[in-house]
Amino acid sequence: MEFLVRFETDLPDSLSSAEKAELKSAERSRAAELREAGILKRLWRVPGRRAVVGLWEASDATALHEALSSLPQFPWMDVDVEPLAVHPQER
Amino acid sequence: MEFLVRFETDLPDSLSSAEKAELKSAERSRAAELREAGILKRLWRVPGRRAVVGLWEASDATALHEALSSLPQFPWMDVDVEPLAVHPQER
Amino acid sequence: MEFLVRFETDLPDSLSSAEKAELKSAERSRAAELREAGILKRLWRVPGRRAVVGLWEASDATALHEALSSLPQFPWMDVDVEPLAVHPQER
Amino acid sequence: MEFLVRFETDLPDSLSSAEKAELKSAERSRAAELREAGILKRLWRVPGRRAVVGLWEASDATALHEALSSLPQFPWMDVDVEPLAVHPQER
Amino acid sequence: MEFLVRFETDLPDSLSSAEKAELKSAERSRAAELREAGILKRLWRVPGRRAVVGLWEASDATALHEALSSLPQFPWMDVDVEPLAVHPQER
Amino acid sequence: MEFLVRFETDLPDSLSSAEKAELKSAERSRAAELREAGILKRLWRVPGRRAVVGLWEASDATALHEALSSLPQFPWMDVDVEPLAVHPQER
Amino acid sequence: MEFLVRFETDLPDSLSSAEKAELKSAERSRAAELREAGILKRLWRVPGRRAVVGLWEASDATALHEALSSLPQFPWMDVDVEPLAVHPQER
Amino acid sequence: MEFLVRFETDLPDSLSSAEKAELKSAERSRAAELREAGILKRLWRVPGRRAVVGLWEASDATALHEALSSLPQFPWMDVDVEPLAVHPQER
Amino acid sequence: MEFLVRFETDLPDSLSSAEKAELKSAERSRAAELREAGILKRLWRVPGRRAVVGLWEASDATALHEALSSLPQFPWMDVDVEPLAVHPQER
Amino acid sequence: MEFLVRFETDLPDSLSSAEKAELKSAERSRAAELREAGILKRLWRVPGRRAVVGLWEASDATALHEALSSLPQFPWMDVDVEPLAVHPQER
Repeated sequence: MEFLVRFETDLPDSLSSAEKAELKSAERSRAAELREAGILKRLWRVPGRRAVVGLWEASDATALHEALSSLPQFPWMDVDVEPLAVHPQER
Repeated sequence: MEFLVRFETDLPDSLSSAEKAELKSAERSRAAELREAGILKRLWRVPGRRAVVGLWEASDATALHEALSSLPQFPWMDVDVEPLAVHPQER
Repeated sequence: MEFLVRFETDLPDSLSSAEKAELKSAERSRAAELREAGILKRLWRVPGRRAVVGLWEASDATALHEALSSLPQFPWMDVDVEPLAVHPQER
Repeated sequence: MEFLVRFETDLPDSLSSAEKAELKSAERSRAAELREAGILKRLWRVPGRRAVVGLWEASDATALHEALSSLPQFPWMDVDVEPLAVHPQER
Repeated sequence: MEFLVRFETDLPDSLSSAEKAELKSAERSRAAELREAGILKRLWRVPGRRAVVGLWEASDATALHEALSSLPQFPWMDVDVEPLAVHPQER
Repeated sequence: MEFLVRFETDLPDSLSSAEKAELKSAERSRAAELREAGILKRLWRVPGRRAVVGLWEASDATALHEALSSLPQFPWMDVDVEPLAVHPQER
Repeated sequence: MEFLVRFETDLPDSLSSAEKAELKSAERSRAAELREAGILKRLWRVPGRRAVVGLWEASDATALHEALSSLPQFPWMDVDVEPLAVHPQER
Repeated sequence: MEFLVRFETDLPDSLSSAEKAELKSAERSRAAELREAGILKRLWRVPGRRAVVGLWEASDATALHEALSSLPQFPWMDVDVEPLAVHPQER
Repeated sequence: MEFLVRFETDLPDSLSSAEKAELKSAERSRAAELREAGILKRLWRVPGRRAVVGLWEASDATALHEALSSLPQFPWMDVDVEPLAVHPQER
Repeated sequence: MEFLVRFETDLPDSLSSAEKAELKSAERSRAAELREAGILKRLWRVPGRRAVVGLWEASDATALHEALSSLPQFPWMDVDVEPLAVHPQER
């Protein structure tokens, strides 16, 4: 099933620039893996914010949580998940 | 997967007492069928309100929507759905 | 550009069943036209509600408003529009 | 009576990794005791968040507070308690 | 256990003045019974509003719901219930 | 007149355990004095939170503020005050 | 003591123009009486709205409620009351 | 001074189509007058809604209220006014 | 024109007691000057909070901002400004 | 298309006065460039706050995000973007 997932990432100032760069690079790599696995389907940037809206697909909320918590920046992400049902016009 | 579903029902005054009684009876029958099918697992009353909190199980949000919209009072229900993931301590 | 559009439709009781059916049919036809024009790209049902989330594409907010207000049920729709920017990972 | 309890835990960065691990282990042990005592009945993970929803049973709000505040991570938990009444269909 | 209960009553215009007067009189009588039974312990008026705050005592949320829903004006009351625990200084 | 006062106390981590214990002890002493003076009439614990709801009596909001700000933990209290009027049924 | 009182009046369409005019005239007369009695001290219009902010003085919340509910339009007013304490700089 | 004014108009179903058309025409005429007078400076449509955002200039909030309440649809407008100060970069 | 201004001041712990005392003294001096200039007309304490409500008069929002930002504690004040129009009964 | 952009800037205390002054100067320079490019069209100060409201023009949300994130203070800005459609009266 699909989920609309919104999150905003706030890396703390206690991380050095190098640590932040490493985290961002690891984040991109893991996101790419999740795209290849068909779990992460689309990402949009919320204009003006360090926030993204994404379309995710997972068998259930437990699998979705595993995917989200596998992201290296997860400890600093504020995440909101909305379940989506198929619309009759899409069948 | 499980969902926490909260809804409050507000039957309009344009319905007669007989129509309301019939709707409530049909609601109970359909709810009993959903319990037998393992879709509706628990219901609680929110004290002081015409609202209920329920624990539902469905394969995905589409199946949940079909179950909810099969309730005779659905046109007058204000529904809020929250997806639930399995907690590690429950495994 | 893309927009995330959320709306909930509340047809008034003053409309007859025939009028409501006619409106819903006209709505589906107009939505199909907007899909063919590439303006309406995806629709999801919010489980438990008479609400939808949709992904729309239009040259700007003015063109989006024209598309939305061309829907026959527009007078009874409560609409919320969120602008989306391209995410760097999507380029 | 039953309560729906929602909480999110935010351990401060001032705690070392060892202290956090010890707290989490102690938390699991105390939760297991509360389950055996029939006070903690179910736990769900809110997908994407360090938050849980739980079904608790206690004789009253005072006993529930004692159970919740006996959790080792209680000083860092943001807790919301909702009282639940028995639904007529459950009798 | 004690509960803090807040409600606002909004009798519809479709009721005649006589019906409203009768309802208010029946409400006072039932409230007096609940006071004598020790369930309704205190009532305050929210200044400027048709709203009250009350201190209620009941064995649990189910008994509280039965008391509240026995009030003749219950169908037109918007009720919010907050559970209260004993404060250590009160023991 | 009576006031419903809700507050939550958040002592900062910069205070030592000894300072916190001393503050809590001083808080209890001052609260006891306010009870004897008839200003603090009842206190309840909000279950699951470091928050209390209290019933206070003071000649006006100025006298109430003086009582509240005389509490040793006042600098770390987030306070919300609601004025209460006498309910006709209480006269 | 002083109170900051905010209210918005919404006369129903079921009242005729004559009834509305009569109510508004009676409202002005009663407000003038409350000004002379020193209870209503200042009124401001919220720009763009049928809402007012007012400064009132009454011995307590009960006396304030009696003054507010003596206004002829009270049944159709949505009122919010905020208690005010004397500021040290005003002494 | 300038004000950012947001309003949404909701003409009631009790008005006939002819009455609504007349109101809309009168609204446009009065708006044109306010533009010529330099009071109404810009208007934008909120996409998807019967709402507008406008930039207005008036000597103070009283003059602004007079301009807004001179609009024929004012009785059915829900208006929110935000005062604007000159930004240093605009001087 | 008049404005209703609400602010809450939160001096950081990084300031020493001496710095705080100096700031508070400077704040009182500047407030006295603004009173003499007829800009600050009334101040009230919000009971239980480090917050004040004030009635201010300035030619426009720009002049009001200059007055507010001239207060020594301005960098630590969270300010909310509401424009007020003259009420017909005050003319 | 035009956007209404609201942001509030909160430079952290960890920056020195010199760093803050440099940032503010760089901010003004970049804002001037965006004005010359026709992207930033108007700015207003929200009275009493370190917040601004601005009217921006960009081809889409992606271009707007690039402009906003090119501001030197962007890492410390909390930004809210609202898309604007052309109002029929402006055509």
